Amino acid sequence: MKTCLSTSIDMIEYLSEARRAVDACLERLLPIDSETPSTIHRAMRHSIFAGGKRIRPILVLASGSSLSGDREVLLQLGAGIEMMHTYSLIHDDLPALDNDDLRRGVPTCHKAFGEAIAILAGDALMTLCYQILSSLPGVPDSVRVAVICEIARATGTVGGMIGGQVVDLESEGKPIDADILEYIHQCKTGALLRASVRCGALAAGARETEMKVLTAFGEKIGLAFQVVDDILDVTSSSEVLGKTAGKDEKVKKATYPALYGLEASRKKAQELLEGALADLEGLGKEADVLRGLARFVVSRTT
Amino acid sequence: MKTCLSTSIDMIEYLSEARRAVDACLERLLPIDSETPSTIHRAMRHSIFAGGKRIRPILVLASGSSLSGDREVLLQLGAGIEMMHTYSLIHDDLPALDNDDLRRGVPTCHKAFGEAIAILAGDALMTLCYQILSSLPGVPDSVRVAVICEIARATGTVGGMIGGQVVDLESEGKPIDADILEYIHQCKTGALLRASVRCGALAAGARETEMKVLTAFGEKIGLAFQVVDDILDVTSSSEVLGKTAGKDEKVKKATYPALYGLEASRKKAQELLEGALADLEGLGKEADVLRGLARFVVSRTT
Repeated sequence: MKTCLSTSIDMIEYLSEARRAVDACLERLLPIDSETPSTIHRAMRHSIFAGGKRIRPILVLASGSSLSGDREVLLQLGAGIEMMHTYSLIHDDLPALDNDDLRRGVPTCHKAFGEAIAILAGDALMTLCYQILSSLPGVPDSVRVAVICEIARATGTVGGMIGGQVVDLESEGKPIDADILEYIHQCKTGALLRASVRCGALAAGARETEMKVLTAFGEKIGLAFQVVDDILDVTSSSEVLGKTAGKDEKVKKATYPALYGLEASRKKAQELLEGALADLEGLGKEADVLRGLARFVVSRTT
Repeated sequence: MKTCLSTSIDMIEYLSEARRAVDACLERLLPIDSETPSTIHRAMRHSIFAGGKRIRPILVLASGSSLSGDREVLLQLGAGIEMMHTYSLIHDDLPALDNDDLRRGVPTCHKAFGEAIAILAGDALMTLCYQILSSLPGVPDSVRVAVICEIARATGTVGGMIGGQVVDLESEGKPIDADILEYIHQCKTGALLRASVRCGALAAGARETEMKVLTAFGEKIGLAFQVVDDILDVTSSSEVLGKTAGKDEKVKKATYPALYGLEASRKKAQELLEGALADLEGLGKEADVLRGLARFVVSRTT
């Protein structure tokens, strides 16, 4: 309950309500199981509804709501981004990449449906994300184009998610370098988290100054999220995380604890949180959810 | 030279010039080899520049030009769609799917770069396609949104490319059914070819009647292309095709020749061509390239 102390919002309740709303939106936007061809729709739903914190859609919701954005638009936008995130998990888990059997506490997509369907289910979730973004209800086309461009850049090869994943793969087993670690973290996870905050703001018609503040906030929260992820891989168990713990060390991944140690990593996460909160100083009470979310990202245990 | 007889356009020369223009545009839009992380950019370029007929971008160009669309916009749109097509080839060739070693006459992406990079190179080409479509120069945002939505639907699971691929995979080795064959052909190849014609028209600001005519044309040409592909798999060699010939029969794929025989398949392709040409009857000389292209699709030998 530590996360609730310094804002007026009960974050535990907020997160649980937001997750329910995001899940209901995902339920509406995904083809039903029985839609032809049903195998691929069952595989997409398997991975989407295997759990997950829904951090990205909740960041979209919190960022857009701080600027009075339309809730239905923000939910659909967040659901699209969650599909993009899930596609990346399905492909990362494949035998040719991280070869993971467990994700969000259940068998990974290729374990449950075979490799061919898992590859196509990842492709399909990315495709559906763009279909949803191009059809966001009741917003100007300029907003649809802006969020599509934002997401494509954040997940691409140059400074985006795929770029981070490639460098991560190529760094396994090699001596860890601080610059490369920063590149991997900023690209592989940071870019889509930052884009989630920015897309929420874009959908709410943010002004340039608001965009600048929220971008700085999103950057710090994106990095903090990954530093905490690295820490939890060392300090938590597979049962608690719902994915294979201790794996980073085993495959000699470039992580914060491996390079700087646990204590310095915790300090780094705390500094990023304080910086992120400072970024929001100019915003009023409407940004309290973002503040609570930032604290949650750093204090989370799973 | 049969393709040139009944129009005023030298199709051989037109196709060769159009391919050069498409390749030059792809060259400009793809990150250079040395851009970090270079492995993925080399892999993307390996598959894009391994050859290929560039049928989809040329359909975009011919369709848009018949309505006086801007050439640079049509080239970028076509290049994006070619990236989408190439992503699907890279993923289809993977060991878990068709397990092919040869494509467009050179080693497939996973043979040259390994499976992990091939999966990510496919993902990256799809992502770059959407980034390009969201940044098409000098067109209204409504056009950008319309082509993105069109491409996402044509490549998705419900009536699109991924749906066709799933049913194709699931039908291997089973008795061939005419309805399933039609579904596979319409979705797996037909949908993106039809979308190429429609996107060219959308980018050129087509009116509703023009859209209707070109959609009917695109549907027939999309199906004709696949019927001819099936025929060539039986009658041609790997050397000529640049991919493994005779494979459909070996894995008992649902194809036109397997279901109806070679002669009936040839007749079907010819009927589709005549229907496609009839669709264009209301259009003038500006549609001559589309007419020539339709003849090329049916008379091609590779």
